[in-house]
Amino acid sequence: MSSAKRKKTARRSPARSAQRIAALAGGVGASKLLFGLYAECDPEKLEIIVNTGDDIVMHGLRISPDLDIVTYTLAGVVDAAKGWGFRGETFRTLERLRAYGRENWFNLGDLDLATHLHRSALLAEGKTLGEAAESIRLALGVQSRILPMSNQPVPTIIESSEGPLHFQEYLVKRRAEPVVRGIHFENVEIAAPAPGVLEAIRGARRIIICPSNPLISIGPILAVRGVREELQARKKDVIAVCPIVGGKSLKGPSDRMLAQLGYEASARGVARLYADFTGIFVIDGEDKSQAEAIRALGMDVAVMPTVMKTPAQKRRLARALLAL
Amino acid sequence: MSSAKRKKTARRSPARSAQRIAALAGGVGASKLLFGLYAECDPEKLEIIVNTGDDIVMHGLRISPDLDIVTYTLAGVVDAAKGWGFRGETFRTLERLRAYGRENWFNLGDLDLATHLHRSALLAEGKTLGEAAESIRLALGVQSRILPMSNQPVPTIIESSEGPLHFQEYLVKRRAEPVVRGIHFENVEIAAPAPGVLEAIRGARRIIICPSNPLISIGPILAVRGVREELQARKKDVIAVCPIVGGKSLKGPSDRMLAQLGYEASARGVARLYADFTGIFVIDGEDKSQAEAIRALGMDVAVMPTVMKTPAQKRRLARALLAL
Repeated sequence: MSSAKRKKTARRSPARSAQRIAALAGGVGASKLLFGLYAECDPEKLEIIVNTGDDIVMHGLRISPDLDIVTYTLAGVVDAAKGWGFRGETFRTLERLRAYGRENWFNLGDLDLATHLHRSALLAEGKTLGEAAESIRLALGVQSRILPMSNQPVPTIIESSEGPLHFQEYLVKRRAEPVVRGIHFENVEIAAPAPGVLEAIRGARRIIICPSNPLISIGPILAVRGVREELQARKKDVIAVCPIVGGKSLKGPSDRMLAQLGYEASARGVARLYADFTGIFVIDGEDKSQAEAIRALGMDVAVMPTVMKTPAQKRRLARALLAL
Repeated sequence: MSSAKRKKTARRSPARSAQRIAALAGGVGASKLLFGLYAECDPEKLEIIVNTGDDIVMHGLRISPDLDIVTYTLAGVVDAAKGWGFRGETFRTLERLRAYGRENWFNLGDLDLATHLHRSALLAEGKTLGEAAESIRLALGVQSRILPMSNQPVPTIIESSEGPLHFQEYLVKRRAEPVVRGIHFENVEIAAPAPGVLEAIRGARRIIICPSNPLISIGPILAVRGVREELQARKKDVIAVCPIVGGKSLKGPSDRMLAQLGYEASARGVARLYADFTGIFVIDGEDKSQAEAIRALGMDVAVMPTVMKTPAQKRRLARALLAL
């Protein structure tokens, strides 16, 4: 048997097809781990459920920042330094939009705009957000399915010291400066999980909660009808990677938001939020003193390096998770 | 009295304020003359009524090619070689739209896209096309009012040898190759002239019909309720510049379209289409042999150089028209 044939057989074997992995993801933080997972497992067996709570409409365009960050990362076109947007991006349209007096606090690159135009046009033609995401990831050659948590808009609203703000207004326009007093996911009561979301959780060997903000990246996904219950049913196979190391967020304002809302900005604080559906909680060596307290919440704890700065670190963490 | 003061007084004098000029315009051909008029008369007294029959929706964006050509020309930002679009334009978004499998036969530059996004967003917010045009011309520093013929969409449909085609499909996608069997302006029966259109014709000292395609640039404007009647009422003050010289269009497929629809592709052929509302028909010296026949249609004829290749030629024709 030739090596090519053997390879083909191997890919089709029941053992391989049982290796499905589901991941719950926000944007930049999650994409570091997803980069590693994409490299370390069969990408066609990886299904990624992405937060769409920070989606926003700007200049009439439907923008899905987390879907795009994940897609661009796996397509290898992302601006690695920023973690979002296209590499080599330009902002010519945005400069002219500003000249027309339009808001320009939200970065819209010229290449990125094509994604938003394409998605908006598909939605206007009656396609779903999931179908748009599928079209975009296929065009960019991404082999893993990328699913929005829901096809319905569920905007994350930050109840802040400056009044209610759309999450992007809070994060980008106001640079996470207002004090957070509450968070709600508008219309989440009437939003259904996108087709494939519950099936991905149900059919996966492992479900990985990426190191994203637990409140505004993973939180909205968990709030979608049926998702949390489906995870609870798979508790022993759910692996959550803690986004807080040494009391600080790996990325973004998670630590500040947790503290402002009265949660503990620590690995244990995140563990409490995930305890009902997580089988293995993954913390960095720096937080190993909290392992006992986290185990007491009813989870196994795995301690390993979770800070990912290099591609090698991303792949190493992915490999370690897949071996758990 | 200082020269500056004298100038200010002159601009405010009743004699000047009576010098209002209205112009009916298509795109590239008309803009040559408008460039001259803008330079030769008080631009604040110039009101331009623009064809919107070739407006199209692409990728969900509302595109008004003739409004944009006129605006960019008078703003001094137009690509002079092409006659449309921004000077120094790039097409990065369009290239990515093509990668997403979207139609890309219609040129959409990165700077130009900002105009379409701004207009589309304003329309989505409930503004009219006229209000969008006003916002765009003011942002670009154009001193003359630029009015769409109507705030309602009136798409020009070409009944062709290949079936019905939107005018842009006929012109750009199919490069004016199909044989034209008929033209209709969809929904023109229910379209109202945009606010200011009839007033501009009524209040102007002179109304200039720019050298545009009589069938698909001036034709749609004339088809809007009340416009033709208003022009007929001002017949002696209406000056039409013939877009056909020596049997050929100065720009675009006018000659071919006229012939295919059974009209004469000549100055006289155009004159027949305009005879009911035109006081002075302006032809090039090359066509002076047709002057007698055109006069017989009930119009005065003025013979002067109408081919405009240089800024000086554009200004000279404008000056000559204003002196009639």
